[in-house]
Amino acid sequence: MREPVELSKAYLLMNHGPVTLVSSAAGGKRNVMAASWAMPLDFAPPKIAVVIDKSTFSRELIEASGEFVLNIPCRAIAEQVLAVGSCCGRGEDKFSQTGLSTVPASIVDAPLVGGCVAWLECKVIPEARNEQHYDLFLAEVVAAWADPRVFSGGRWHFPSEDLRTLHYLAGGNFIATGDAFSVGAETE
Amino acid sequence: MREPVELSKAYLLMNHGPVTLVSSAAGGKRNVMAASWAMPLDFAPPKIAVVIDKSTFSRELIEASGEFVLNIPCRAIAEQVLAVGSCCGRGEDKFSQTGLSTVPASIVDAPLVGGCVAWLECKVIPEARNEQHYDLFLAEVVAAWADPRVFSGGRWHFPSEDLRTLHYLAGGNFIATGDAFSVGAETE
Repeated sequence: MREPVELSKAYLLMNHGPVTLVSSAAGGKRNVMAASWAMPLDFAPPKIAVVIDKSTFSRELIEASGEFVLNIPCRAIAEQVLAVGSCCGRGEDKFSQTGLSTVPASIVDAPLVGGCVAWLECKVIPEARNEQHYDLFLAEVVAAWADPRVFSGGRWHFPSEDLRTLHYLAGGNFIATGDAFSVGAETE
Repeated sequence: MREPVELSKAYLLMNHGPVTLVSSAAGGKRNVMAASWAMPLDFAPPKIAVVIDKSTFSRELIEASGEFVLNIPCRAIAEQVLAVGSCCGRGEDKFSQTGLSTVPASIVDAPLVGGCVAWLECKVIPEARNEQHYDLFLAEVVAAWADPRVFSGGRWHFPSEDLRTLHYLAGGNFIATGDAFSVGAETE
């Protein structure tokens, strides 16, 4: 299930610091990796920052295409999130290996990862020094999507445990996003 | 309560994407602001990335000193986290205004914020283009601390609701960090 998210609200998909899956494609190849080191960088136009290690095949595909998708997975696919963070060699197709499905994106060639609950289609803002010295990629979000069961009207709401987003600790340990609570006069 | 965290494990304090308080000091002034847009950037030496808007007084203090502390607050002080994100003019002392206490840091002049559960003392890695174009600051973590009730042996464990770390949504709405769950063969 997938509905467009206004670009001015795209940062809200990342504001709570969930783990992401970075999907990429170039020259007939595709890949997906897990990334906890991702954050919003600006509101409008929305930008994000993400760390993509030089040793990864995803890095090659992202450098070749200048595009990727930040997918936000949920607890239902936590095993696959861990698997794409650890399995598979350069020649193998991680989607086939882990059973993750894909859906075509709207603007970029990289696919949306099935089973996720939000998706940010991104175009790299070339900043060679960041990429070379820090493995840091900046990108503009050119389209955003969310599962309306989980994010609508600019708000996250988790109707079931399986649909909660994830935060990565280490060694196969995750935290599922909890329930919201309100503080102060601005709350509803 | 505060014990040192090995620098090689400092990234674990930020890996799950909690909201942070950025404290700073220069020329006899000090300030604190809330920042959700912060993430680890490297393991060893540990580095972090954080967005610090040009319009903030904290930005002036950080540019003058080249230092700041990333403090990780918990639910017990969620009201103050929201307050430092919204209250107080440039001339006022946000610590006094919000009732947040401070403790001297070990290496940097910026203070540690009392009532938090982890602290990363940071020295800015000057990258003028990032700072000017993206409000993006990169920094090396030169000392790290945690409340051992909440983080010890490289692991988070939340003994009470009040000590859970926070994730910011919007409009005064937070999520408290949930409980960990394990996936796959690497787990304990």
